[in-house]
Amino acid sequence: MSETADAGSIPPAANEQPLLIFMPSGRRGHVPAGKTVLEAARELGVEIESICGGRLTCNKCLVRVEEGSFQKHGISSRAGHLSDPSAEELALLEKLDSLDCRLSCAATVQGDALIYVPESSRGQKQIIRKTATERTIEVDPAVRQVYVEVDEAELGEHRGDWGRLQDALREQWEIETERIDLPALRELQPALRAEGWAVTVTLWQDEVIDVQPGYREGIYGLAVDIGSTTVAAYLCDLRTGAIVAADSTMNPQVTYGEDLMSRISYADSERTGLEKMHEAIIDTANRLAAQTARAAGLQARDIHELVVVGNTTMIHIFLGIHPGELGGAPFALANRDGMDIKARELGLRLHRGANVHVLPAQAGHVGADNVGVLLAEEPYRWSEVGLIVDVGTNAEIVLGNKDWLYSASSPTGPAFEGAQITHGMRAAPGAIERVRIDPETKEARFRVIGEERWSDEWQLGAEVPPEEQPRHLAAGICGSGIIEVVAEMFLAGIILADGRFNPAFQGDRAQWDGRTGAYVLATAAESSSGRPLVVTQDDVRNVQLAKAALYAGARLLMQRAGIEIDAVSRVILAGAFGSYISPQHAMILGLIPDCELDAVYPVGNAAGDGARIALLNRQKRAEAQTVAHQVRYIETAVDAGFQEAFVAAIHIPHAEDAFPHLADILPDNKQAPRRARKRRYSRD
Amino acid sequence: MSETADAGSIPPAANEQPLLIFMPSGRRGHVPAGKTVLEAARELGVEIESICGGRLTCNKCLVRVEEGSFQKHGISSRAGHLSDPSAEELALLEKLDSLDCRLSCAATVQGDALIYVPESSRGQKQIIRKTATERTIEVDPAVRQVYVEVDEAELGEHRGDWGRLQDALREQWEIETERIDLPALRELQPALRAEGWAVTVTLWQDEVIDVQPGYREGIYGLAVDIGSTTVAAYLCDLRTGAIVAADSTMNPQVTYGEDLMSRISYADSERTGLEKMHEAIIDTANRLAAQTARAAGLQARDIHELVVVGNTTMIHIFLGIHPGELGGAPFALANRDGMDIKARELGLRLHRGANVHVLPAQAGHVGADNVGVLLAEEPYRWSEVGLIVDVGTNAEIVLGNKDWLYSASSPTGPAFEGAQITHGMRAAPGAIERVRIDPETKEARFRVIGEERWSDEWQLGAEVPPEEQPRHLAAGICGSGIIEVVAEMFLAGIILADGRFNPAFQGDRAQWDGRTGAYVLATAAESSSGRPLVVTQDDVRNVQLAKAALYAGARLLMQRAGIEIDAVSRVILAGAFGSYISPQHAMILGLIPDCELDAVYPVGNAAGDGARIALLNRQKRAEAQTVAHQVRYIETAVDAGFQEAFVAAIHIPHAEDAFPHLADILPDNKQAPRRARKRRYSRD
Repeated sequence: MSETADAGSIPPAANEQPLLIFMPSGRRGHVPAGKTVLEAARELGVEIESICGGRLTCNKCLVRVEEGSFQKHGISSRAGHLSDPSAEELALLEKLDSLDCRLSCAATVQGDALIYVPESSRGQKQIIRKTATERTIEVDPAVRQVYVEVDEAELGEHRGDWGRLQDALREQWEIETERIDLPALRELQPALRAEGWAVTVTLWQDEVIDVQPGYREGIYGLAVDIGSTTVAAYLCDLRTGAIVAADSTMNPQVTYGEDLMSRISYADSERTGLEKMHEAIIDTANRLAAQTARAAGLQARDIHELVVVGNTTMIHIFLGIHPGELGGAPFALANRDGMDIKARELGLRLHRGANVHVLPAQAGHVGADNVGVLLAEEPYRWSEVGLIVDVGTNAEIVLGNKDWLYSASSPTGPAFEGAQITHGMRAAPGAIERVRIDPETKEARFRVIGEERWSDEWQLGAEVPPEEQPRHLAAGICGSGIIEVVAEMFLAGIILADGRFNPAFQGDRAQWDGRTGAYVLATAAESSSGRPLVVTQDDVRNVQLAKAALYAGARLLMQRAGIEIDAVSRVILAGAFGSYISPQHAMILGLIPDCELDAVYPVGNAAGDGARIALLNRQKRAEAQTVAHQVRYIETAVDAGFQEAFVAAIHIPHAEDAFPHLADILPDNKQAPRRARKRRYSRD
Repeated sequence: MSETADAGSIPPAANEQPLLIFMPSGRRGHVPAGKTVLEAARELGVEIESICGGRLTCNKCLVRVEEGSFQKHGISSRAGHLSDPSAEELALLEKLDSLDCRLSCAATVQGDALIYVPESSRGQKQIIRKTATERTIEVDPAVRQVYVEVDEAELGEHRGDWGRLQDALREQWEIETERIDLPALRELQPALRAEGWAVTVTLWQDEVIDVQPGYREGIYGLAVDIGSTTVAAYLCDLRTGAIVAADSTMNPQVTYGEDLMSRISYADSERTGLEKMHEAIIDTANRLAAQTARAAGLQARDIHELVVVGNTTMIHIFLGIHPGELGGAPFALANRDGMDIKARELGLRLHRGANVHVLPAQAGHVGADNVGVLLAEEPYRWSEVGLIVDVGTNAEIVLGNKDWLYSASSPTGPAFEGAQITHGMRAAPGAIERVRIDPETKEARFRVIGEERWSDEWQLGAEVPPEEQPRHLAAGICGSGIIEVVAEMFLAGIILADGRFNPAFQGDRAQWDGRTGAYVLATAAESSSGRPLVVTQDDVRNVQLAKAALYAGARLLMQRAGIEIDAVSRVILAGAFGSYISPQHAMILGLIPDCELDAVYPVGNAAGDGARIALLNRQKRAEAQTVAHQVRYIETAVDAGFQEAFVAAIHIPHAEDAFPHLADILPDNKQAPRRARKRRYSRD
């Protein structure tokens, strides 16, 4: 603060805070010695990607130390600026071929340093492709506006203005209300007198939350889906039901750990961890409210209700409830039921009388987001058996029809979100999302987010004018790309049905380290880092584990329901991820149970749609409560049948007879011995 | 801020803020030129008494300008430091014989000034004599605590901790609850696990507001009576019903104007007037909560509910509702009914889940305080007709029995509180509260608050040791003193039945200014100001107007009820004032209708008792709501009968036959011609 002495002449004191400069952003500042580089970066507002939250597993937070100390202290050696790497970190760096780098979650600050954050490690705003689907919802929201003409106050008549308003509501609208929110009561008297005792009353359920002079029109609500990674918001006109604006943003809690367990740990490990994550999501909700309102020519105070869905951990943190119990058996929720809270109690800056409605959860691992999916897809009205899969860090699976419903949460891990994959990344610009491999040449072509052309049409090299070069080179592989590349590697014979690399696979695209193979998906020239992007044996194994978990979850529910393996008449893929994966590749991989390919429906953000439905129709909240209690949740973690199904599902499915429809799409050489195809339910 | 230059050498800039110093407190500071001295004093934390709120009517805010500017500016003249007095102010100062003073509400600051605030103008903490009466109340509060043992969370069972708690409350206590306050929900999970799933649950109505591990005991509530002048608080143990601490303090809004109209004007005249008064009363409630809790060895967070009563203006301001509509016909209340609000919404620092219950009002001028009086005295259960009088700035009058109840608010004005009386003051140390006048010599003796001895036993003079001198000389006359002195003046023949000074009145105690007489109550030696304290013809008139208003209100209700003039079997004097007036003198004056002297009951702070009853017994809140609707409120302001009764009641009552019981107490020479005494109802 009061550093007035000439810094150049004084060697650094032991307790002086080192200076860190992060490139390419140029952000700089002093941080206490002993902090990790990741923590220091957060403090200085530099976003470094971190999925595992500092547990040395995701390897996403690599940084390069460019300069260890600065001239001003007269020391030029690079020693002493960061802590020495542990044996574990060194092994990881060696494996990643990044010995010139450090893991920013492991290296601690010891002295001044200039640190370079490579593109692949930079946290950045994601491209969000969630769009609300159009569906017919009866508009009967919890918030409504009515215009009433109220008796004037008269001497000798003592009802009070609120009593007179109650009478007017009863007589003119048959509305019985006993409650008026204090801020509305405070403005009641001037409002009644401003335009001759005619007012527009806004009610939430049976509570008056606003009284405006004369005739006014305009009530809006916000449906919010808090995903672990993405927060999506839909601003709706509560009179028409129309979406008037939508927006989404990254969940800022990602910087505290990408998966749920990391966040639960963070809430525990730091004294104010819960508070920080809570404030971060409240800030985000406020920002989305303001942004969507502005986009629609409104203000945040025009938003009269907010309906929120999310997984149980997200909802706990949103409400400021410690999620610790969700981190271990028996996974106890603080509250399973839907609830209403004044928005201002949570620090939300909406209409001053606005309420928040949280949809109910089903169980410790199946939250309001899945109940939102149920509201959106209404499996409890289906006459035939269908399957809904919502893939995220965990996959929520629902199986059933109008007579019965089962649900489970499958521990797919974050592979489908790009984590635990050597060159995995989130769905951001530069992420490979589509892959085709030539079965003959084994050459790959791919498409990255942010660039329309497939990679085989890219023009590269110094001689190509910048405007003709691809806007993004390949930076990594996102979820849909991972599914496609592994399925394509199987189809091209690069990997075998058990997931091992085919020993016969050779050529430019092959990398062998002893008996361990790898496939070069993007060449050094096609890659933003200048190094090839490869799919390793470990990556294939991780995808196999994830898909086996998902498939085993579905199989477990089918076993519980006692239905045949081909009894599923439709498969609904919910979530943004579901919209971008190729159903064909998913089925080749054995991600989902067999059914006709055109009975696979990607429905986008069904959880968000469910929130919107509950926002627009209050009867649906009771429906949500009922169905949340009806669904029978099966705990996969302790189920022997799940383990069995999981092991059986590790292989790539041509060896199984569970996928008769694959016959229609697989090339001849991958066909399983054809068996008698069972009768299937007709589809509506 | 950064005044570094030598102040002594620089003349004051035109826009420099003048420096004010207030004596004897010594408080000082710069204030913008143009503020009134009263405003400046408030800003600097100097309390100057002001009853009328700056309307040049109460003449309580006199100050003396000791020094107009200071040496440092090299100007020693007294000119230019305050604005010149207006003709109106000059006339007032002349009338008050105070031409060396200024009215601080009228004089504005123009330059530096040293200002002396005489004792009579100083706002000060009042001596509060309100004590809660002991009465039997069935303890059945809205807040209760129950101990429950809750099912442990188990894998495969998904009720959630709140669901499990709900089940335990239902099974073990037959309590059905759907609501848990968010802060309680946030601490539910650790609380359940801290002592083996046994917890103490605190409920307010059917809402869970706290969950504590194991067995705990201790719920407390605070009953608060917000008077215009005094705020009284009773801390009660909600298990036993016992008062564990009581305290009271001056209503800090007094500095914004003493009577209700002044405060309503203040809310209007300043942009933040309402906010200031609201914050002042909330601060006071917080302070009383903390003080009573400390006195009982508790903390404010042990207070789980607050029940509040007050007149309608006080309740509006407490809730942050602008009281403007109460300032003029038709005197519309924002809300007549009882209501509940989370204490934290009002900024009250009690238990984090505490609620505030506000008792209902009857009409624009009869508020929750009067409903509290009804709860305390229960006239709606009387078999005979009784009268309740609650004297304040307005007098609330209730007449009736179990079959019917009438109420009215009589505009007595503030004379009974010491205002509009030449030497009137509030019930503070030095105030004359008891008076006796010798009918022969016309000599007075009196007693002041804070001094046990009557004035005729005082030892005065320089030769008397300080410890033998009275602790307080006479500083003014408070309400009970005013009633006694006027009644005694009548009994001594100093004034006639019509209120005029008896032309035959002469001697040391007589002051005549032409045909206008005055009575010297305290001599210069007995007075703290060194000037005699007199009772003028105007003072007598003001007391006559006040007592006539009160009596006329009672008569009006009796007329409406169609009952005989002596049908009142008891008279209840509520309020602190009622406890200190002499029933005998009140009846001589004709303040209250005739009845036997021993059927007049001073009951102290019945409004506060009512708040306490509602705090301890929630059924009483419903009772309050019912009775508030039952009482028929008679608007005196527009009633011809009231005007008639008022005019008829101006005289001092020996000329009337309405006071047969006076025969027992009046001296022979004051007896009215005896008439046939009517049969009176027997008393229980």
